[in-house]
Amino acid sequence: MSSPTSKPFRERAEELFRKLQDEITSTLEALDGSGKRFFQDSWERPGGGGGRSRILTEGDVFEKAGVNFSAVHGEAPQSLHGGNQELTFFATGISLVLHPHSPKIPTVHANFRYFEQSNGLSWFGGGMDLTPSYLVEDDARHFHSTLKSVCDKHDSTHYPRFKQWCDEYFYIKHRNETRGVGGIFFDNVSGDTEAEREANFEFVEEIGRAFLPAYVPIVERHKGESFTEEERRWQLLRRGRYVEFNLVYDRGTRFGLETNGRIESILMSLPTLARWEYDMHPAPGSPEAKLEEVLKNPKEWAA
Amino acid sequence: MSSPTSKPFRERAEELFRKLQDEITSTLEALDGSGKRFFQDSWERPGGGGGRSRILTEGDVFEKAGVNFSAVHGEAPQSLHGGNQELTFFATGISLVLHPHSPKIPTVHANFRYFEQSNGLSWFGGGMDLTPSYLVEDDARHFHSTLKSVCDKHDSTHYPRFKQWCDEYFYIKHRNETRGVGGIFFDNVSGDTEAEREANFEFVEEIGRAFLPAYVPIVERHKGESFTEEERRWQLLRRGRYVEFNLVYDRGTRFGLETNGRIESILMSLPTLARWEYDMHPAPGSPEAKLEEVLKNPKEWAA
Repeated sequence: MSSPTSKPFRERAEELFRKLQDEITSTLEALDGSGKRFFQDSWERPGGGGGRSRILTEGDVFEKAGVNFSAVHGEAPQSLHGGNQELTFFATGISLVLHPHSPKIPTVHANFRYFEQSNGLSWFGGGMDLTPSYLVEDDARHFHSTLKSVCDKHDSTHYPRFKQWCDEYFYIKHRNETRGVGGIFFDNVSGDTEAEREANFEFVEEIGRAFLPAYVPIVERHKGESFTEEERRWQLLRRGRYVEFNLVYDRGTRFGLETNGRIESILMSLPTLARWEYDMHPAPGSPEAKLEEVLKNPKEWAA
Repeated sequence: MSSPTSKPFRERAEELFRKLQDEITSTLEALDGSGKRFFQDSWERPGGGGGRSRILTEGDVFEKAGVNFSAVHGEAPQSLHGGNQELTFFATGISLVLHPHSPKIPTVHANFRYFEQSNGLSWFGGGMDLTPSYLVEDDARHFHSTLKSVCDKHDSTHYPRFKQWCDEYFYIKHRNETRGVGGIFFDNVSGDTEAEREANFEFVEEIGRAFLPAYVPIVERHKGESFTEEERRWQLLRRGRYVEFNLVYDRGTRFGLETNGRIESILMSLPTLARWEYDMHPAPGSPEAKLEEVLKNPKEWAA
């Protein structure tokens, strides 16, 4: 038997995410164009498994780009095993955050993961979302429609559900705004039958491969544009909000901090520089205000 | 009757904190020396009361100095009244965070507050702590001994208890280090008798007035010192840790974010700029490593 299903999902998922990391980092190196390579930091998890964190900083395009792969296993955390010490878990995933230098190029985040427990439960999760400092409607439309066309091939309910989930998840409650123009977010995608689980795997594989076509053209479009110090300052203020979201709300970050996760990998998502100013509001009608408007009222970008 | 006790504590506390804000901001303006004044933002709380936030940015000494006074009242939050809708509260306090430009001058935080409920319960809380980018032992000793001598006049157990409380409170668990070289922290300081409550008031008044003598001489000592870009970079990395503490652990901040507090006043504590670098560790034996050492192993500074 050499069909894809002859291998257990955990192996196939691990292989997929490892390959995705390779494809993404080599494409980003070429896109950055500085000749800089990702630095790889391989690490082991004391409880079982490990990962490889890849970082590129101070490139021509990317101020900080982190692409992390991990495959870990061990005894399930107390919160999951509910006293059943026999329960073990396996988790593998890729997660990335790219912070470009230029305020004209959006920050982007993507994450895909597979989780399996020894009691037979297994599920996929993931998503990706775009965080511009300046709203370019064509970028938002391109990003969303790339994701929508992959989603639609699998299930016509995926995109509307996952788009809304994303708007709800990446929401900075105390600012009453979303983190960016969204994308998709999904979790606990499981299946009752082998065929359903196979379909889920194929969806995650295809949406994972959609990351580069969803994001790279946006970088290409804006990488030659100049920007002012004032635009850079606004970008750093927006990054302050990014930090607020990640440290206050992001479940992965908070779970990692609370459970003694690998700090450097968890906080790889934070930008090199972030800025806060007291009670700062952009002038009405300005490009900065135009962004805020859409963060407060999420729109449909791929209807 | 014109004795101090003829007025209710809530009025006296509010007056004290209002005066403290005036004294502190006018002293800081003189210390800053740029001729810049604090900008005052007066605000009202929809549920009752209000405050005045004072901010000075881009001064000669201070990159961002925020000194906030508030006196608010209303229905007690759900978490406190436990279903008893009749319970009302009154809270007044002053809180400040000063972020100097120079990495040679420590960041400082102070906070004093009085809380009272309609069921008769009342208590004081507060403290202050010093967060240097570079360890200067004389500074830490001066700060701590100023606080200790005020504490000792009131109760010989105050300083050792409140010093330890401070080290425990301002602890960045995921970094396994304290936020800075500490100071004192106390909460729920209540009294069974009028005499005890009066003694508590006097303690808070005197420790509040100790803020300027504890901090100002440290600024005076270092304000003429030059610094390098590398030292500034290290300071911004330390400020990243400050942001991590405030957003992840600080109870006041998290309570404010969760209960729809006034965001700008709550996040006034965040620095203008903060920095994160992947897996950054100072060279062994460097001045930066010397600071980290003491953050990982809090010391006695006023034995």
